[in-house]
Amino acid sequence: MLLPRQDKFFDLFDKQAENIAKAAELYHQLVEKADFSPEKVRRMHEMEHYGDELMHSTINTLNETFITPFDREDILALANRLDDIMDNIYLLTKRFHLYKISQPTQFSKRLSSVIEQTTKALQHTLAALRNKKHMKETQDYCVEINRLENEGDVIKDEAISFLFDNEKDPIMVLKQKELYEIAETTTDCCEHVANLVESILVKNN
Amino acid sequence: MLLPRQDKFFDLFDKQAENIAKAAELYHQLVEKADFSPEKVRRMHEMEHYGDELMHSTINTLNETFITPFDREDILALANRLDDIMDNIYLLTKRFHLYKISQPTQFSKRLSSVIEQTTKALQHTLAALRNKKHMKETQDYCVEINRLENEGDVIKDEAISFLFDNEKDPIMVLKQKELYEIAETTTDCCEHVANLVESILVKNN
Amino acid sequence: MLLPRQDKFFDLFDKQAENIAKAAELYHQLVEKADFSPEKVRRMHEMEHYGDELMHSTINTLNETFITPFDREDILALANRLDDIMDNIYLLTKRFHLYKISQPTQFSKRLSSVIEQTTKALQHTLAALRNKKHMKETQDYCVEINRLENEGDVIKDEAISFLFDNEKDPIMVLKQKELYEIAETTTDCCEHVANLVESILVKNN
Repeated sequence: MLLPRQDKFFDLFDKQAENIAKAAELYHQLVEKADFSPEKVRRMHEMEHYGDELMHSTINTLNETFITPFDREDILALANRLDDIMDNIYLLTKRFHLYKISQPTQFSKRLSSVIEQTTKALQHTLAALRNKKHMKETQDYCVEINRLENEGDVIKDEAISFLFDNEKDPIMVLKQKELYEIAETTTDCCEHVANLVESILVKNN
Repeated sequence: MLLPRQDKFFDLFDKQAENIAKAAELYHQLVEKADFSPEKVRRMHEMEHYGDELMHSTINTLNETFITPFDREDILALANRLDDIMDNIYLLTKRFHLYKISQPTQFSKRLSSVIEQTTKALQHTLAALRNKKHMKETQDYCVEINRLENEGDVIKDEAISFLFDNEKDPIMVLKQKELYEIAETTTDCCEHVANLVESILVKNN
Repeated sequence: MLLPRQDKFFDLFDKQAENIAKAAELYHQLVEKADFSPEKVRRMHEMEHYGDELMHSTINTLNETFITPFDREDILALANRLDDIMDNIYLLTKRFHLYKISQPTQFSKRLSSVIEQTTKALQHTLAALRNKKHMKETQDYCVEINRLENEGDVIKDEAISFLFDNEKDPIMVLKQKELYEIAETTTDCCEHVANLVESILVKNN
C-alpha cells in the first residue's frame, strides 16, 4: 500500500522531466524556424500549465504519504526546481514573441540547442534516481549537465561580446542581452536540479 | 518556561508580516500619489530597519531556545525570506526616488495593488501557522498568493510589452523595466514564503 | 580514521575561502590599475577553476565519509555558496574585459575594496567554524559581513544615482549598471555564506 505511492513520486518526476525535455525540443525548433506566433506561445503555455499540475500532484501526494523514498523537503525542492526550468523555457518563448524578434541570432540558436541537450541529460538523471544501482550513471549525467552549463556560459559571453561590439540600437541590446541571460538561467536551473539530485544521493548513500 | 518561548516565534513572525503589510500599503499609496520624496523614502527605511530588528530577534530567540515549534532551519529561513520581501519594497521605493519618476505608470499602480493584496494574504498565512487546526485555511491563502503572483506576472508582461512598443528613450526603458521587475520579484518573494509555509506544514503533518 | 576526514572538510573550506580572498585582492588591484588584459582574465580563470576543484573535493570527501562535523547538506550548501562568490568575482573580471572599460569608476574602486574586505572577514568566519569555542568570534565576523554588505548596498545606490544623472550613453549606462549589480551580488553571496554559517551554528548549538 505504501510502495506504490513511493513509485508515484518517481513517476511524477519522470513526467515533469519529460514535459521539460519536450518543451526544450519545441523551443529549439521555434528558434530555428523563427516562429514565435501566438499559437506557438499558447502551445508552450499549455506545457507550462501541465508542468504546474505535475508539481502540485507531487505536493498533494506528499501530503497523503507517510513513508517517502527520500526526505520530504527534497521531494518538494526537486518538484519546485524542475518547475523553474519549465518557467524559464516559457519565459524565453514569451520574450521572443513580445520583443518581436523576427530573426533569432546564431547565439540564440546555439543556446537553444544546449538547453535541449541539458534537459535530455536531466531526464536521464531523474530516471536513474529511481534505482540506487544506477548511482554512478546518475553522477555521470550530473557531470554532463555541468559541462553543458559551462558551454552555455561560454556561448553567452561570446554572444554578449558580439552584441556590444556590433549592435548600435540600445533597445535591441537590452532585448538580446535579456534573451541570452534567460537562456543561461535556464541551464543554470538544470544545474541546480543536478546538484539537488547529487545532494539527495549524498544524503541517502 | 519553554512554551512561552515557542509562542514568541509566532509573535515575531506576526510582527514581521504586519510590518511588511503596512509597508506594502504605504508603498501603494506613494505610487498612487506619485510621492517619493526623501521623507517618504526615510519612512520606508525605518520600516525596513524595524524588519531587520525583528529578524535578528528571531535568530537570537532561536539561540536561546531548546525546543522550537518546528525545525530550527525553517524558522531561520522563514525569518530571512520574510526579510527579502521588506527589502524589495524598500528597494522599489528607493528606485522610484532615485530614478526621479514623477508619474508612475498605470502598470506600476496595478502592480503595487497586487503587492499590497499579496502581503495581506501572507499575513493571514503566517497567523494561521500558529494553529495546526487552521491548516486548510493556511493552504487556501497559499493558493491565493500563487494566484496573485500569476496576476503580477501577467501585468508585468503587459507592462513590458507596452514599454517596448511606446517608449523611445532607452534610459527610460531601462528604468521602467527594472521597476516592473523588482515589483514582480516582490510577489515572487511572497510566493517563496508561501511555499516555505507549505513545506513546513508538509514536514509537520 | 574518521577524525582526520572531519578535519579535511575544514581544510577544504579554509582553502576555498583563502582562494576567494586572494581572488578578491587581485580583483581590487585590477580595478585600481584598470588592467583587465587577457592575461589577467586568464589568471582569474585559473583561480575560479581551482575553486571548482576544491568544491568537487568536498563533494567527493562527503561521499566517502560516514560521520561529518555537521549536516551533510550544510557541508554541500557551504561548498556551493562559497563557489558562487568565486564565480561572481570571475564574472566581474570577465565583464570589465568584455565591456572594454578602460577607466573603472570611483564607485567600482570602492566596491572592489568592500569585496576584498568582506572576503577577508569570511575567511576568518570559516576558520573559526572549526572550533566551537570561537562561536562568539564567528558571530562577530558575521555581523561585520552584514555591515560590509550594507556598505556595498549604499555605494551601489550612490553609483547608480550618479550614473543616471551623468551618463548620457545608454549602452554605457547598461554596462556600468551591470558591473555595479554584479559587485553587489558578490557581497550578497558573502552574506549568504555568513547566514549559512550562522544557521549551522544555530543547529549545532
